[in-house]
Amino acid sequence: MLTLNETLKDIRHRVDDMLDKLLPLPGGPEKQVVEAMRYATIGGGKALRPFLLVMTANMFGIPKENSIRLATALEMLHSYSLIHDDLPCMDNDDLRRGKPSCHKKFGEATAILAGNGLLIRAFEIMASEKTWIDPVVRCELIVSLANAAGFHGMIGGQMLDLLAQKDEVNMSLTEIVRLETMKTGRLLMFACDAGAILGNASFDERQCLKLYASNLGQAFQLTDDILDIEGAVEKVGKTLRKDVKANKATYVSLVGVDNAKLKAKELTQQAINALTPFGDKALPLKELALFILTRDH
Amino acid sequence: MLTLNETLKDIRHRVDDMLDKLLPLPGGPEKQVVEAMRYATIGGGKALRPFLLVMTANMFGIPKENSIRLATALEMLHSYSLIHDDLPCMDNDDLRRGKPSCHKKFGEATAILAGNGLLIRAFEIMASEKTWIDPVVRCELIVSLANAAGFHGMIGGQMLDLLAQKDEVNMSLTEIVRLETMKTGRLLMFACDAGAILGNASFDERQCLKLYASNLGQAFQLTDDILDIEGAVEKVGKTLRKDVKANKATYVSLVGVDNAKLKAKELTQQAINALTPFGDKALPLKELALFILTRDH
Repeated sequence: MLTLNETLKDIRHRVDDMLDKLLPLPGGPEKQVVEAMRYATIGGGKALRPFLLVMTANMFGIPKENSIRLATALEMLHSYSLIHDDLPCMDNDDLRRGKPSCHKKFGEATAILAGNGLLIRAFEIMASEKTWIDPVVRCELIVSLANAAGFHGMIGGQMLDLLAQKDEVNMSLTEIVRLETMKTGRLLMFACDAGAILGNASFDERQCLKLYASNLGQAFQLTDDILDIEGAVEKVGKTLRKDVKANKATYVSLVGVDNAKLKAKELTQQAINALTPFGDKALPLKELALFILTRDH
Repeated sequence: MLTLNETLKDIRHRVDDMLDKLLPLPGGPEKQVVEAMRYATIGGGKALRPFLLVMTANMFGIPKENSIRLATALEMLHSYSLIHDDLPCMDNDDLRRGKPSCHKKFGEATAILAGNGLLIRAFEIMASEKTWIDPVVRCELIVSLANAAGFHGMIGGQMLDLLAQKDEVNMSLTEIVRLETMKTGRLLMFACDAGAILGNASFDERQCLKLYASNLGQAFQLTDDILDIEGAVEKVGKTLRKDVKANKATYVSLVGVDNAKLKAKELTQQAINALTPFGDKALPLKELALFILTRDH
């Protein structure tokens, strides 16, 4: 039985192998864009979303060869959003996952193209029968991911975030939670739901997993905001004190660090409670929730 | 029987109605990104790609309600590429389809998000059973479009174009044709192939249609380059003399306008010849090829 840390590393490793396979360097000078796609994905981050997808699929007996392929597509989509969010006209961030962000390394144009390339490749992999044999399920997954990523989800959330930073929208606590659900929560919910869709889960099971992911997503965002204030840059691997510098309203800036920590604890407990129907099978998901609460990176 | 011009207008009108339906404005301040998506798609351009898709599908008896929906997704994908290509870090173009380009109107960040939103929405629509009942066909269309749009197609072509403009790659005639096939030709080929896939066309029929689209695409690019030199901005609706100003190697700059016109004629004839097996059913596609050869916009 692997520990949580070993499982996270194992999934990161498998996803990296799959990224290497699914993003081969083409010939010709245009290969630069694939170099940027590989730079922004392989070996980057904790692979939290792949973990959620693979571990949820595992609860329903789905073979790893399928869930890892789908998780790799999901990681591509997540990386596309990081590349574009870091651009000068967006959050203007030079550091990502402990190294120069994609546009610092390859230039803006290549970074934009690399993000687009990852987005397109993600959908292509999801539509392939190598990922899953049943085309009805493949289409359901694509529609579901598009919903999480589109203007009701991540894109709408990023738009709202930009408007809020320019003081064009005043953000209440409710609106901050809505923004963060769109920007981060929806994709975490998709990660769990994708495993459940592959596993032909019941409506009730899917609802429980979505509730878990929704609470986990909010707790994740809170600890992210707290790390932005209290974290060490060499551990977190991205620019810190951004929110304060940008005078950005976050949940933490409105209620204070201590209240935010209490709230994160409460959300983690709610996430864990939502897993009750699954018993011991959901142990990895429970451990992840506790890890997120106490993480320093 | 409608004339070519009436058919083009009819399809443009139907696609606009479908865009209006498929891109409803959400509530909340984040609606700005959907406004930009609508701005960049509705009423813009000749709808050449939708025409190719709908007319090819028509040859195989596919109902318009299906082909128009798929053509609308294709038009979204095409518009995404125009929005991103116009960005300051790409081709830096202020004018598109006779009005300010998307980033001039909404700012860079919103334009990037709008492009991404259109790309994601295109795949979502293609995966929906409202577009086509058979999920195997839907997945085949998605993989095929992703191939045309990805790093072997449009994205690779744009990367190569940027490198060529920075003189990082020396372009021979062969390489220019390869670049343009990637950047423009592949999506035109997809437009015809999508109609054929919907229509369950034979291998031979699909090959003929791809040959048509490939020749048409090259002729289209040549007339585009010639219009860049000889056209009137109020008709063409985009910035002209760009290639000369950017000192950009094009087929026309290498062989001269007169030779390029001869070549366009030859390609048009080859496109028309490829349609022979379809007889009169292919008349609209033939007319389009002749229209492209003599167009002034």
